Amino acid sequence: KNTSQEDGNGIGVDVELVSEIPITNETFLERNFTKDEITYCMSRPDPQSSFAGRWSAKEAVIKAVSSRATSKVWTKGEAAPLVDIEILPGESGAPVVKFHNDAEKAVKDAGIKDVKVTISHSGGFSCAMAIAE
Amino acid sequence: KNTSQEDGNGIGVDVELVSEIPITNETFLERNFTKDEITYCMSRPDPQSSFAGRWSAKEAVIKAVSSRATSKVWTKGEAAPLVDIEILPGESGAPVVKFHNDAEKAVKDAGIKDVKVTISHSGGFSCAMAIAE
Amino acid sequence: KNTSQEDGNGIGVDVELVSEIPITNETFLERNFTKDEITYCMSRPDPQSSFAGRWSAKEAVIKAVSSRATSKVWTKGEAAPLVDIEILPGESGAPVVKFHNDAEKAVKDAGIKDVKVTISHSGGFSCAMAIAE
Repeated sequence: KNTSQEDGNGIGVDVELVSEIPITNETFLERNFTKDEITYCMSRPDPQSSFAGRWSAKEAVIKAVSSRATSKVWTKGEAAPLVDIEILPGESGAPVVKFHNDAEKAVKDAGIKDVKVTISHSGGFSCAMAIAE
Repeated sequence: KNTSQEDGNGIGVDVELVSEIPITNETFLERNFTKDEITYCMSRPDPQSSFAGRWSAKEAVIKAVSSRATSKVWTKGEAAPLVDIEILPGESGAPVVKFHNDAEKAVKDAGIKDVKVTISHSGGFSCAMAIAE
Repeated sequence: KNTSQEDGNGIGVDVELVSEIPITNETFLERNFTKDEITYCMSRPDPQSSFAGRWSAKEAVIKAVSSRATSKVWTKGEAAPLVDIEILPGESGAPVVKFHNDAEKAVKDAGIKDVKVTISHSGGFSCAMAIAE
């Protein structure tokens, strides 16, 4: 019996090798991170890990949102730029997600009201999980 | 004060070294994966990682289901074959769980209506998380 | 549009390199683990991994709790001893969280009724996730 088809998964996990994120490639950065995200990551003690953690978080958010929707809301698939999913620290210090442009429309079309995300990195790996409700 | 005893945990995470899954051992594969899962994983660009990700997902699902139950529903423990927890991509592409045989009974006995799961792998590791509700 | 500010995140993930937890340092252990936790971890086949998994779990719980609160409940920040977040196996075998002292007060002040946690380790890494509701 299939238990999770009805309302979609709505959860996402992502793990990445920190070294694989090419943070010296400016085109890559601008395609995937907002100015505020770049400023934030560059100000951290270990920018490479901060960018990787944020990358993991964006991937986890895409999984959570696209699996929640019953129709194909994330039409651009894996080639979509991640810049439209902005993740910055909120008041508590925990990451807060803001959606822009096509990503905002996809989230709205999927009837999603809330997306939570959490990030960690250690020993050369970053990990994130997201829940879309 | 104990906050999570009342209704069980219902969540599970699992991390695995991709290289530790012996995918050339046919007996191992047939004990733990359905025919459809084997066909799916073998068709992927990196079967070793696909089997490992699915293995992580099954372990995460067992943790979520067995911690949700108030009584011991997963009676076979870690020696149980994982073939009864089938995980294949659903319409959205996200993994969907189907339970068979003893696993189906365990889920029913625990009063679980929905099990969500998400999978990732990178840099030689696979990771999955599951939520049972 | 900011989707997750209203009621806080309430989720936490943590990944750690198992080798980085200094389990031969008694001061470190007593600052961060209760007597029952130390007894439990020392009785496991691989104490180093057990302590690391528990450390990950405590970090994930802090993230979940502190991101759930609208005000700053975790006033001691990262310097806080983790001994006040006790994580031991419950009846099902799954980890159960108990809060003591300042941590208990923080959880209460944040209006949190339930904290779930799950732990995994493999290949030199530990990983945990927590949900605070």
